[in-house]
Amino acid sequence: MRNIKLIVEYDGTAYHGWQSQDNATAVQDVVTEAVNRLTGEKCSIIGSSRTDTGVHALGQVCNFFTNSKIPADKFAFALNTMLPDDIVIKHSEEVPADFHSRFSAKGKKYRYLIYNSTFPSALLRNRAYHVFYHLDCELMNKAAGHLTGTHDFIAFSAAGSSARTTTRTITQANVSRNGEMIEITVAGDGFLYNMVRIIAGTLVEVGFGKIPPDAISEIIAGRDRRKAGRTAPAHGLYLVEVYY
Amino acid sequence: MRNIKLIVEYDGTAYHGWQSQDNATAVQDVVTEAVNRLTGEKCSIIGSSRTDTGVHALGQVCNFFTNSKIPADKFAFALNTMLPDDIVIKHSEEVPADFHSRFSAKGKKYRYLIYNSTFPSALLRNRAYHVFYHLDCELMNKAAGHLTGTHDFIAFSAAGSSARTTTRTITQANVSRNGEMIEITVAGDGFLYNMVRIIAGTLVEVGFGKIPPDAISEIIAGRDRRKAGRTAPAHGLYLVEVYY
Repeated sequence: MRNIKLIVEYDGTAYHGWQSQDNATAVQDVVTEAVNRLTGEKCSIIGSSRTDTGVHALGQVCNFFTNSKIPADKFAFALNTMLPDDIVIKHSEEVPADFHSRFSAKGKKYRYLIYNSTFPSALLRNRAYHVFYHLDCELMNKAAGHLTGTHDFIAFSAAGSSARTTTRTITQANVSRNGEMIEITVAGDGFLYNMVRIIAGTLVEVGFGKIPPDAISEIIAGRDRRKAGRTAPAHGLYLVEVYY
Repeated sequence: MRNIKLIVEYDGTAYHGWQSQDNATAVQDVVTEAVNRLTGEKCSIIGSSRTDTGVHALGQVCNFFTNSKIPADKFAFALNTMLPDDIVIKHSEEVPADFHSRFSAKGKKYRYLIYNSTFPSALLRNRAYHVFYHLDCELMNKAAGHLTGTHDFIAFSAAGSSARTTTRTITQANVSRNGEMIEITVAGDGFLYNMVRIIAGTLVEVGFGKIPPDAISEIIAGRDRRKAGRTAPAHGLYLVEVYY
């Protein structure tokens, strides 16, 4: 059997996250249906990351095994004709049999968008978190710098995480502003449940002066979820890329 | 009576354009309903521009007369609590009695977004026109330069326009690329029906080499709609600003 890897972009607004579950449509269900229709098989689609309801992806990765003879790069075009327009396959290729979207992943990059303006934006309503009080982006960026490195991030993790260890290495964490849009970029070897959204919520509290930037190291060391900021809403979060 | 001016942002996806019409919901209807609910009056909302179905606005302008005593700058906040989240009032102010959103307008700026990539974008599906063949942005920008100045733009006008004259002055027309996004900006004293979409469609044909940039002057001079390019789809178009 051939192992086919897909890179998927989706608008998470209409879906109950990536992962299939009872009584709600997940992105995985829709991709599985399209793959099964195309191949005439019953394939299991393995995703790299469970994204929450409303979270978007520019580069979710998944893979499946098939006996189909379709050229690997043609899966993307063929599947797109069967998918709704809020889910797009951007790339397809054949990968070795031992490639596993989740277990082979070496790291991930996320982006979190904040629309920082007095009034909300009609066009960005499902695309960025609206914060109406002014945020100091330089303070946020300074705070983000304290996140990089290898730390126990349990203070930035929601309860219910199934991870065996809460230690992760963050390789990139920075915050930049372009007009009314603030972009938080975080990359690392892995992320705990809700970790990026808790990071974003904490950086927002830094941005309006509630948490000093240097307190980030103490929050990490304190290992207490209550010392970090609120969980920022899902619709500002984007899974940008998965590294292998 | 007081004359109140509003600046409105909207996502045009769910609406049959700005202007009220039978059997379909227009943005004007929704704004009128909110204003009437807030003031307890029956106000007529005068808009600056009829935007087509699917066209977006960052800065549509409208005005209405009211006896309401609400401070002018508070209309925006109050109306936003009554509007769906795909329509946002970004600004409200009191203006002189002779201000008329449409007749007082001195000029307008539009933006047209093209997503130029092999695959479409799930997140931009209602926000930018997807063109999968590569467009030469420099050729497009050169062609756009020929649009500036005062010309009879009947070749760039759809039939059914009610304008008395088809001569318009374009003060700005340029095309720039940022990665896979191509942005066309056009500003001028006024625009004929579908004019910006026909300009965008024509520039796309320049971008893939079907129309040479220098042919734009001939197309204008020829006054024949059939010599210009196709009408680009509505969902890439944004009314950015109205000048007074």
